[in-house]
Amino acid sequence: MNLKQIAKDTAKTLQSYLTYQALRTVLAQLGETNPPLAIWLQNFSANKIQDGEAYIEQLFREKPDLALRIMTVREHIAEEIIEFLPEMVHAGIKQANMEQRRQHLERITQIDTSNPSLQPEQQTSSDPNLDNLSS
Amino acid sequence: MNLKQIAKDTAKTLQSYLTYQALRTVLAQLGETNPPLAIWLQNFSANKIQDGEAYIEQLFREKPDLALRIMTVREHIAEEIIEFLPEMVHAGIKQANMEQRRQHLERITQIDTSNPSLQPEQQTSSDPNLDNLSS
Repeated sequence: MNLKQIAKDTAKTLQSYLTYQALRTVLAQLGETNPPLAIWLQNFSANKIQDGEAYIEQLFREKPDLALRIMTVREHIAEEIIEFLPEMVHAGIKQANMEQRRQHLERITQIDTSNPSLQPEQQTSSDPNLDNLSS
Repeated sequence: MNLKQIAKDTAKTLQSYLTYQALRTVLAQLGETNPPLAIWLQNFSANKIQDGEAYIEQLFREKPDLALRIMTVREHIAEEIIEFLPEMVHAGIKQANMEQRRQHLERITQIDTSNPSLQPEQQTSSDPNLDNLSS
């Protein structure tokens, strides 16, 4: 496991994602102040935003002011939220892992109780072990 | 700009991305130890990994041991790299914004010097302002 490379790739993905969020923010602002430009930007951006840097570069060639605006907004978003992400992601993964395990246990015990035919030796519903499992 | 919602969405995206990186790691390990299972997992995962949690849930129904393994690996990756991400992304965005501005300036000055016909008043290449711009 090359953790250094994973960290680099993750940072790059995050940077692209923040560029996408900056685009969404600018689109919402333009929707209020300059709807035709919002529509132009929406059409221009479709299918281009996957690679944030290539997208900004293309936008610079068409409308430098919009490229600069998205760059400013993504830097601002990063400054505001990035310090909270480690704790959020950490907690999110711990919570999700626990939830996935819980659901899996629930499914296993449901199979045990609702398909007694699969387990011939436990066909009586009064089996105390089974009752414990499904409670 | 709803920064709280952006932070939530970003954390969720990051969680999915780390799930994808955990899958890649497990695929590489299985490629060494159990190639047929690696191929099975590769085929199973195609087009499913976009939503990390839905993916894990589906995998749990097919091969719980692999789901547990990917969950363990993603938690480990998060623990190892997540604290470095804020600084990396911050630096990455600052660097990228500077680079984009520099490239844009270069393009502007290239247009100025290589297409003098577009600017009739600056057709002499000895124009001192132009020389300064392109230097």
